[in-house]
Amino acid sequence: MRRGGGRFRTIEWKNGCMVILDQRLLPHREKYMKIRSSAAAIEAIRTLAVRGAPAIGVAGGFASALAAMETAPLGRDEFLVKFLRRLKDIEKARPTAVNLSWAVGRIRRAARAATGERAEILKAVHSEAGKILREDACSCKLIGMSGERVIGNRARILTYCNAGALATSEYGTALAVVRAAVEKGKKVSVIACETRPILQGARLTAWELKKDGIPVRIITDGMAAYCMRAGMVDAVIVGADRIAANGDTVNKIGTYAVAIAAAAHGIPFFVAAPGSTTDLTKKSGDEIEIEMRDPDEVTHFSGARVAPKGVGAINPAFDMTPAKYITGIIMESGIARPPYRGSLSRHVRESLEAVKVKSK
Amino acid sequence: MRRGGGRFRTIEWKNGCMVILDQRLLPHREKYMKIRSSAAAIEAIRTLAVRGAPAIGVAGGFASALAAMETAPLGRDEFLVKFLRRLKDIEKARPTAVNLSWAVGRIRRAARAATGERAEILKAVHSEAGKILREDACSCKLIGMSGERVIGNRARILTYCNAGALATSEYGTALAVVRAAVEKGKKVSVIACETRPILQGARLTAWELKKDGIPVRIITDGMAAYCMRAGMVDAVIVGADRIAANGDTVNKIGTYAVAIAAAAHGIPFFVAAPGSTTDLTKKSGDEIEIEMRDPDEVTHFSGARVAPKGVGAINPAFDMTPAKYITGIIMESGIARPPYRGSLSRHVRESLEAVKVKSK
Repeated sequence: MRRGGGRFRTIEWKNGCMVILDQRLLPHREKYMKIRSSAAAIEAIRTLAVRGAPAIGVAGGFASALAAMETAPLGRDEFLVKFLRRLKDIEKARPTAVNLSWAVGRIRRAARAATGERAEILKAVHSEAGKILREDACSCKLIGMSGERVIGNRARILTYCNAGALATSEYGTALAVVRAAVEKGKKVSVIACETRPILQGARLTAWELKKDGIPVRIITDGMAAYCMRAGMVDAVIVGADRIAANGDTVNKIGTYAVAIAAAAHGIPFFVAAPGSTTDLTKKSGDEIEIEMRDPDEVTHFSGARVAPKGVGAINPAFDMTPAKYITGIIMESGIARPPYRGSLSRHVRESLEAVKVKSK
Repeated sequence: MRRGGGRFRTIEWKNGCMVILDQRLLPHREKYMKIRSSAAAIEAIRTLAVRGAPAIGVAGGFASALAAMETAPLGRDEFLVKFLRRLKDIEKARPTAVNLSWAVGRIRRAARAATGERAEILKAVHSEAGKILREDACSCKLIGMSGERVIGNRARILTYCNAGALATSEYGTALAVVRAAVEKGKKVSVIACETRPILQGARLTAWELKKDGIPVRIITDGMAAYCMRAGMVDAVIVGADRIAANGDTVNKIGTYAVAIAAAAHGIPFFVAAPGSTTDLTKKSGDEIEIEMRDPDEVTHFSGARVAPKGVGAINPAFDMTPAKYITGIIMESGIARPPYRGSLSRHVRESLEAVKVKSK
């Protein structure tokens, strides 16, 4: 399977380590980090060295594998108590993207289901972590196939943040749709919102699309509505960090503003995400916890202060886009359309099933 | 008359020079620049050392005074030909804010109306430039008085870019409304959108409000809609660079997105601007030229590249907010309300008249 961009690996398991491309250094340096402990993995997730809901799901699986290796007792019961306690720390590394707790939940179940002592549980945990990685790669391909049908030739796609190969194990979610359309021979160009404060759009989306030779231009986040009114945008496609049962979608801060603007201009607004990003236990998006991050991310830029000393900032890392603004949710099994109650749970079931079958 | 913030001067005329606070260095350095030639004045306007529609109107007046001093011929006709030609260069320094061409237009008329030779014309030009400065200060005070009535006690005002003392000779337009409300004893707090790419919100609005002791917090531009949905915003007040006869308002890029979001949340969206910012020759905002600036402003941050090499950007400096999104236009004479055809031209007439009378 071709890797997104063909020239980098967002996350993999190699010689007993988790290896990630350190996204804090992009686009200036392409540096891989070997992560040898669960503590280092938690730190990498917290500091955004690896980010993007599906990718931190995969990272959560590998972090759990590292935790299992660190857990010493050989007896089954004592091992499980210590290991399951450590899984809670991993799960809490970041609160909003459901993929992290979803992946850790899978590890937890695999560990409990394993028969035998430490060695057998370790084997089950490693196997499950590997499966999460393979399934993610498969998910992305299926999402691309589901979504490319809504992309016309010469489509101009506006995207927000990075829902690309760098946000997944490979290929992407929103950008999977773009890549699949390009692979079908369609000419597609992308407008990437820079996505303050962390600039995932300017730094990451632009970087991986340029690697793939897909035309991309950057705008500041405040320019999205201008571009829509100027007739420069045919559709918006974004990723997701958690989708509630009613279709409400939590994604990178600023997504909501883009969705409102798209609605005001009659431009379709799609969310592209794997079934594992839905959380059907949340009835609506208002029940989803929004991570608040350090205000310094807003008042500073690349480590240098831009705002006057003593002036504070607000820094929610995500916002919630109500389902009414969402034209469709592109998943592995197809596109869920409003009303989402019903259509979403069906697509989640079919998507998880499709991935299980196709990734084998 | 108290200066906005009481401790700095955005622009003044001193010992035959135009003196400006170099806004490119804020908030880190408060450095004043002596501008001794019209060429240096044009450069200061182009590079945003002085910015904000009313302030570049004042700067245009002083730049014209410098141009008059540079124009050598003593004979009236030869002097006028050369001088009026130079005024065209000043007028073209930036295209969007109407105040620049409005101020230069006043200088042109004053020069033509002056009887006598070079010395007399010089005197008339200087007098007119001084009048533009004094009238601007008066305008800002009147705008504050007009607008503070719509500000309740404990109001949380969201603003965009900088429409403060730094965008005018003193006191501001949007921030004049905030200052006037504070002077009336109301508790008011401000959320300032950072305003990429130049960060006038994070750098300038935060700086001058902090100097005044008015509570201010910074958000990234993409957070405005989030804050509105979270119930953190009672009203939006922004400035303007040019207002068409139908109320369509051109202002800093990103304003339009905020206006759409305000409408979606039922939050009042006010424009505060002097009569001199209207351009009744433009029937609608679509007739107003939008300045396109260097894409490097988007791909770079504080001089350092953030986007990958070879990736381009779009950089319109302004956008247009259609009148239907604007709750009211706060001017010297009061608040113009929709429908703007009729109400706007009446307020412009009354505002210009009020300023003429009160600034004497």
